[in-house]
Amino acid sequence: MLSKSRIEGLSDGVFSITMTLLVLKLEVPMVMHHSTNADMLDQLLELGPAFATYVVTFLIAGGFWFLHHLTFHFIRQVNGLLLWVNLLFLMFVSLLPFSAGLMSHLLVHPVSQFFYIGNQLAIALLLNAHWLYAKRRDLLDSAAPSQISRLTLRIAMAVAVFAISMIVAFFLPAWSWVPLPVFLLGGTIYEWRGRYKIQ
Amino acid sequence: MLSKSRIEGLSDGVFSITMTLLVLKLEVPMVMHHSTNADMLDQLLELGPAFATYVVTFLIAGGFWFLHHLTFHFIRQVNGLLLWVNLLFLMFVSLLPFSAGLMSHLLVHPVSQFFYIGNQLAIALLLNAHWLYAKRRDLLDSAAPSQISRLTLRIAMAVAVFAISMIVAFFLPAWSWVPLPVFLLGGTIYEWRGRYKIQ
Amino acid sequence: MLSKSRIEGLSDGVFSITMTLLVLKLEVPMVMHHSTNADMLDQLLELGPAFATYVVTFLIAGGFWFLHHLTFHFIRQVNGLLLWVNLLFLMFVSLLPFSAGLMSHLLVHPVSQFFYIGNQLAIALLLNAHWLYAKRRDLLDSAAPSQISRLTLRIAMAVAVFAISMIVAFFLPAWSWVPLPVFLLGGTIYEWRGRYKIQ
Amino acid sequence: MLSKSRIEGLSDGVFSITMTLLVLKLEVPMVMHHSTNADMLDQLLELGPAFATYVVTFLIAGGFWFLHHLTFHFIRQVNGLLLWVNLLFLMFVSLLPFSAGLMSHLLVHPVSQFFYIGNQLAIALLLNAHWLYAKRRDLLDSAAPSQISRLTLRIAMAVAVFAISMIVAFFLPAWSWVPLPVFLLGGTIYEWRGRYKIQ
Repeated sequence: MLSKSRIEGLSDGVFSITMTLLVLKLEVPMVMHHSTNADMLDQLLELGPAFATYVVTFLIAGGFWFLHHLTFHFIRQVNGLLLWVNLLFLMFVSLLPFSAGLMSHLLVHPVSQFFYIGNQLAIALLLNAHWLYAKRRDLLDSAAPSQISRLTLRIAMAVAVFAISMIVAFFLPAWSWVPLPVFLLGGTIYEWRGRYKIQ
Repeated sequence: MLSKSRIEGLSDGVFSITMTLLVLKLEVPMVMHHSTNADMLDQLLELGPAFATYVVTFLIAGGFWFLHHLTFHFIRQVNGLLLWVNLLFLMFVSLLPFSAGLMSHLLVHPVSQFFYIGNQLAIALLLNAHWLYAKRRDLLDSAAPSQISRLTLRIAMAVAVFAISMIVAFFLPAWSWVPLPVFLLGGTIYEWRGRYKIQ
Repeated sequence: MLSKSRIEGLSDGVFSITMTLLVLKLEVPMVMHHSTNADMLDQLLELGPAFATYVVTFLIAGGFWFLHHLTFHFIRQVNGLLLWVNLLFLMFVSLLPFSAGLMSHLLVHPVSQFFYIGNQLAIALLLNAHWLYAKRRDLLDSAAPSQISRLTLRIAMAVAVFAISMIVAFFLPAWSWVPLPVFLLGGTIYEWRGRYKIQ
Repeated sequence: MLSKSRIEGLSDGVFSITMTLLVLKLEVPMVMHHSTNADMLDQLLELGPAFATYVVTFLIAGGFWFLHHLTFHFIRQVNGLLLWVNLLFLMFVSLLPFSAGLMSHLLVHPVSQFFYIGNQLAIALLLNAHWLYAKRRDLLDSAAPSQISRLTLRIAMAVAVFAISMIVAFFLPAWSWVPLPVFLLGGTIYEWRGRYKIQ
């Protein structure tokens, strides 16, 4: 009954605003005209953790946007429940500037890590719920079963990577950033090998 | 004469920005590297009322977006007056971050409750006016009369729930949040019973 | 050569964000749990000028969005120069939160009035330039000449009203808000009379 | 496999939000009711560098939006890698309010100039990479080869102008703004001469 174009519009809006609001957590250093270059560079370097958080959060959000985009490529129809799962998903997406702000100050603090990674895990879990529900209730355009199972795997991997990061953050806070690039690299290698086998 | 696609575009924009700006009312606690986990958790717990307001406001706004979306599903044509009612509706939607900010500080204060619930009531009343005007001026695509009367009922319920909340807030500020979940639960049960009868 | 849909998309984005950012100029009063109702109401009443500016600016921006929307209803084609006039137009639209912030503090100060009304005048002038250029370069869909001349008149009126407000602000700052409602009322009466004559 | 409409939607969102957030770097002067006109004008004039940065950054961002818009006019298809180059491009676009904030305070300081011009150079380089990749991988609609080579030249010029500005900023910070208008003027003259020759 519901058209999917406005849900896509709202989602693109929330994603683009969230990704752009992240920049407001980078506070412009208050410097004077007589500051030396060395002073200013020092102040910019102190923003290092905030910049790292900005880049990582922007790219993770971009990745979730990409996966969300792909799910709607296959979703033919939307019902009320799917729409509400989407709103919850967007609620956690738009919480990211807060979580990123917490992380910017305290890159390796267990509490900020739990909050930040927990936020990403909630996004991944809701994206997964949205996708599995759409699959089960037969709301998909079933033209491309192999692409659909590949997307199912990718979303499940997003859940796995943040669940593992959460466990790592519990024991070794300084290592919690390792699972994400490892999975991305592994996934890329796996897909490249798959392509060469087929050809 | 007017196309409805750009009004939908402006509305989706205002809704997505408002919903995302709510997060700016959650101030990141200023903590130090030597803060203990217990300190940080305490500070996050102090944000409890602000988080509750964030979640509730995001979901109510999502609900209004959903109802607004449904009205435009049936509206075939737009005239100048309908457009201005919509702009007033969007003006109260975009006031939500202010009302939510007031509520975040003082969850059970009568004045912040009146302001917040009054804001939601104004949104509901303008949505109702927009819908009734479109119906009366025959701007609807009248293909589905039963769905149209169901939507009329739903929007009237949104008005009722916030009007009742306002009255409750006057006598018992701490109970003003009760009408909304009661109505949602009642509505859901009613619709489920309706479905089973039909089948 | 250029499609108009993305220019409409960018414009709707800038308008909806600007209109929503206006709310950030309403500072939530910092009150305590033990504030009395009278204290809080006092603080909200002190925000009176800021609220008035919010409402007026939101509605004027809505009016410009509406006129801009109407121009694109008739524009068939876009060229490079038209696009740049549009970008300048959007630059002054997105300056509105600053002008409104200035006005919020000092409702009848000559300098804030000049800045605010000057901003609105610049928007009106650029909208006029955009429309006249599109007309002269034959970029319009000329199906409805009477509607086109009516729109030309309306946009010229927007320029006139803010030019007159500017002059009034120079001599009588407290009266600078009078021309706008007078023109709106006059225009509405004129159009109603026109309709009854035709029928 | 991927549709280009949602990437355009996300891009338009990021551009319009970034361009509108620039205004938040213009701090409204805190003045009193008894401030004289001269006082207020002084305070507005002190915002001069911030206004100059606002105007220049808004227009440069508008220029990049325009070039990005033109590239998607010719791009027929999108693949995963192109999408990620776009996300990186958008990441640097949404960093502009920070760079502009740095510049607002210190217009001729070498460090803020390097940061600001470096940001613009990164945007230009990623736009160039996005375009050359799309060309090489045959993702373009090759109907208009002369327009495509003209766009290739324009994007290369954007890279050149910010690379030269960077070098100028190193030796003569106060002159780093010269290359941009010189290139724009030169390009406009070149295109006008080209038109007259053809006709």
